Amino acid sequence: MSFEQRLAELGLTLPTPPKPVATYVPFVQVGNLLFLSGVVPSRDGQIVYKGKLGRDVSKEEGYEASKLTLLNALANIRLAVDSLDRVKRVVKMTGYVASHEGFTEQPAVINGASDLLVEIFGDAGRHARVAVGVAELPLGVPVELELIVEVLPASS
Amino acid sequence: MSFEQRLAELGLTLPTPPKPVATYVPFVQVGNLLFLSGVVPSRDGQIVYKGKLGRDVSKEEGYEASKLTLLNALANIRLAVDSLDRVKRVVKMTGYVASHEGFTEQPAVINGASDLLVEIFGDAGRHARVAVGVAELPLGVPVELELIVEVLPASS
Amino acid sequence: MSFEQRLAELGLTLPTPPKPVATYVPFVQVGNLLFLSGVVPSRDGQIVYKGKLGRDVSKEEGYEASKLTLLNALANIRLAVDSLDRVKRVVKMTGYVASHEGFTEQPAVINGASDLLVEIFGDAGRHARVAVGVAELPLGVPVELELIVEVLPASS
Repeated sequence: MSFEQRLAELGLTLPTPPKPVATYVPFVQVGNLLFLSGVVPSRDGQIVYKGKLGRDVSKEEGYEASKLTLLNALANIRLAVDSLDRVKRVVKMTGYVASHEGFTEQPAVINGASDLLVEIFGDAGRHARVAVGVAELPLGVPVELELIVEVLPASS
Repeated sequence: MSFEQRLAELGLTLPTPPKPVATYVPFVQVGNLLFLSGVVPSRDGQIVYKGKLGRDVSKEEGYEASKLTLLNALANIRLAVDSLDRVKRVVKMTGYVASHEGFTEQPAVINGASDLLVEIFGDAGRHARVAVGVAELPLGVPVELELIVEVLPASS
Repeated sequence: MSFEQRLAELGLTLPTPPKPVATYVPFVQVGNLLFLSGVVPSRDGQIVYKGKLGRDVSKEEGYEASKLTLLNALANIRLAVDSLDRVKRVVKMTGYVASHEGFTEQPAVINGASDLLVEIFGDAGRHARVAVGVAELPLGVPVELELIVEVLPASS
């Protein structure tokens, strides 16, 4: 089954690729590596989750926010290479979690995105990962994700 | 017009490349990718901006700090490959903004660097970007930038 | 002298490679670049250092925590490519330091890892570096490190 089919089978639809609000772009490809801009938990331009873990947002909500954030990264991958089927391997994901004093379960939050990557891409979705707790994130979101993805050549 | 000429036309001069204060180096090149160390808003060894956004430093000052920080990254690129004209593409920039509780306009701060990249390099300056709000930065600076740049071979 | 011999000569033994506690993996290799997951100051599954710099953990303890954290990264490198002797160059290290309000000596903390890289790998250990102060880290650790390493082909 293709990754695009798998996404549909999971009942998931990707949001409209988020528009960068400044002089940067959603992705840059160098050779077979696709470097993606940071994405946040929005759907079609609207922020869906706001606040900090450990204060306003529960761990479970954070997990869901992390899944939605990942869908925005996937939307950018599709924008870059036309189809998720061009993903060869998810290389690295950095997960930034807006964390109130004392919240140290960043991994449980970022698991929302990690689990979904493996559900969609199987072994190709198994990635190196970094999860850290930051002070604040743009627009007050609880999660921001940054990915590096290895892609197949367009001809294959 | 070359990127070096464009820099001069904008009336900009690069600071002396900042000296790493420990056992690391300003850049490492692997193939055509140049990985740059984090840089801060200094000029010739002196920190120019201090404090946190949302408390000590205004958004406008943050924008200026971000521009100056970028000039230090450019100084390191020139140190690495002799001339900014060897830049093929700015691949990714991560912007860390020292953020007081409640400051969520990190993108507006990092725009200082993003806008300047595009002013100097045009389309080659359009980069993937991540902007996050951190608790503290080295030496109390408000902004730290990290870049990955694709460079042309020395012979071209 | 090989890097493995140098490690032994320094009296250092690597911890058991830390097990990712979720659906990610300790490393992903693309071409000659090895992207490593974030590691923390643990030994054989037990967290050794806890707390924040500037409050619970002194700069000197942070330096030691940073060294131990690096050993976990090295354990993952050995897991990935069988021997530290396959390291061609340490490309980039990002050091995240859990920082209490006002602590701005992140570089002094991350020096523990940087110094050890150069002790073991010599010039091949000289890396590009980023050091930032974050709000919180997983499991309450004071330091997390993320590395990108260039490796030699298996045949060499």
